[in-house]
Amino acid sequence: MSLLAVGSVAFDNIETPFEKRADVLGGAATYIALAASYFVDAPKLVGVVGADFGEENLQVFKAKKIDIEGLQVDASGKTFRWSGRYHYDMNSRDTLDTQLGVFASFSPVVPHAYQQSKFVCLGNIDPALQKHVLTQINRPKLIVCDTMNFWIESKLNDLKETLKLVDVLIINDGEARLLSGDPNLVKAARLIRAMGPKTLIIKKGEHGALLFHGDTIYSAPAFPLESIYDPTGAGDSFAGGFTGALAKADAAGEAISEMTMRKAVLYGSTMASFCVEKFGTERLQELTPPEISDRYQAFCALSKIDE
Amino acid sequence: MSLLAVGSVAFDNIETPFEKRADVLGGAATYIALAASYFVDAPKLVGVVGADFGEENLQVFKAKKIDIEGLQVDASGKTFRWSGRYHYDMNSRDTLDTQLGVFASFSPVVPHAYQQSKFVCLGNIDPALQKHVLTQINRPKLIVCDTMNFWIESKLNDLKETLKLVDVLIINDGEARLLSGDPNLVKAARLIRAMGPKTLIIKKGEHGALLFHGDTIYSAPAFPLESIYDPTGAGDSFAGGFTGALAKADAAGEAISEMTMRKAVLYGSTMASFCVEKFGTERLQELTPPEISDRYQAFCALSKIDE
Repeated sequence: MSLLAVGSVAFDNIETPFEKRADVLGGAATYIALAASYFVDAPKLVGVVGADFGEENLQVFKAKKIDIEGLQVDASGKTFRWSGRYHYDMNSRDTLDTQLGVFASFSPVVPHAYQQSKFVCLGNIDPALQKHVLTQINRPKLIVCDTMNFWIESKLNDLKETLKLVDVLIINDGEARLLSGDPNLVKAARLIRAMGPKTLIIKKGEHGALLFHGDTIYSAPAFPLESIYDPTGAGDSFAGGFTGALAKADAAGEAISEMTMRKAVLYGSTMASFCVEKFGTERLQELTPPEISDRYQAFCALSKIDE
Repeated sequence: MSLLAVGSVAFDNIETPFEKRADVLGGAATYIALAASYFVDAPKLVGVVGADFGEENLQVFKAKKIDIEGLQVDASGKTFRWSGRYHYDMNSRDTLDTQLGVFASFSPVVPHAYQQSKFVCLGNIDPALQKHVLTQINRPKLIVCDTMNFWIESKLNDLKETLKLVDVLIINDGEARLLSGDPNLVKAARLIRAMGPKTLIIKKGEHGALLFHGDTIYSAPAFPLESIYDPTGAGDSFAGGFTGALAKADAAGEAISEMTMRKAVLYGSTMASFCVEKFGTERLQELTPPEISDRYQAFCALSKIDE
């Protein structure tokens, strides 16, 4: 059940209404791999860090048995750094600063041992880099891809090339409207799936998510949390939990059916709901399987209707 | 399984991106009673119309066997009229004009034959009038109440008096935040339920609804409609379908359990999803039981997870 996570590994400077902290371990690949580590053994990571990425941060990956052979250390520069501030309602944020560092010249190299990965989760990076990763590996069983407004607006042609290769696209509602040009999410989904991804997940933040797969729609609830401590990494945790749950089901001999996809969406939602409970990756570092199982059951109960 | 609907009966002048029409039969009590008529026999209506409310409009009620003994005809003035325009995305609207007409001096009178009503649905009118209705009837089995921003802002004390008497309050997310003063819906729900209603439904438009009942939360999906023709009356149709489904379950000897409440929320959502498919009350006038049953099953399928 090999799973490959690709994306940024970063330091974040985060301001929320509750707390302000610098040098927090972050990045899409970090959250994806941590979330996936609760579902699969030794998820593999492809990314890059600079000379300033100390051993204590590598230990976070090692503690979760994440395979970091594919994590390049580029001693010529600094680790990618994002600075952001969340608004009062936690639903929106401002990017205060971005320092690309070694990410500016990053060219992902997939180690030989990673080339048979069955499940690939492409974090939100330049779509040309996402495609470059796919050219280095054998056709996986499933390719999951995240993207964002920035790439839709600045690299649409590259994104469309990548989408042709992708099985599952995960985006939020605003991005779905932007990518499709249609405000109605049902119509937007049809237009986006015609670009390549057979399966589409539209995340709606505090309103849950929609899964478009085959000819059905699944409406996943959001967990009604009373307080959100730090939303950073929630989307990546969703992607990691979703891909990890599918890889786990596959390893157990389960077909990737529509119901398997639905359950994976709830596992993704479960990991995202944990992620926001503490700062940065803190909560994802300390989870236990019973906690995950209980939260998943709580998600199921949220929308349960007896026949 | 007697059900009493209280509220406005109106003429609406409606502009949507698709069509503009005047003199459309509307009003909260109209939509509530029409939606409820698919669940209970002869729902009762309390409201007022003016001399301009012709027989053709009374026929709409009579065709659905709605009991209009409580519909006062005040020949001294005109029927309440609302004029509004929906924005492009149909999620927001501007009120262009309101002519209260005979509604300005309306004092609801509950006919003797209505006083044993078991289920009462108080449409969105002045909370003092809602309370005045309740003083005229024996304690019903269940009182469902709708309200809006306008009353929260202008008649908060009256509203709080009415809420003390109410079993189920139905409001939207913006109104819940306004009434409670808390942006988090879970916290808002706790504060609002402390004002009286044991059960709270928070509608989230295209994102479904949350039901707070006992110590559980139910997250109901929205129906992923590709096109919305006219949103007018959707909230009232929800209230009528919800109350009607509970009255029907009660008549069948079912306890009003948490699961009964959940199913009623889906029946309310079902009626709202039909309402917006055509102009005004058109769709609610022509529904068939199999259509309602099929749509309800589709709602169940939207969030179904196998154990």
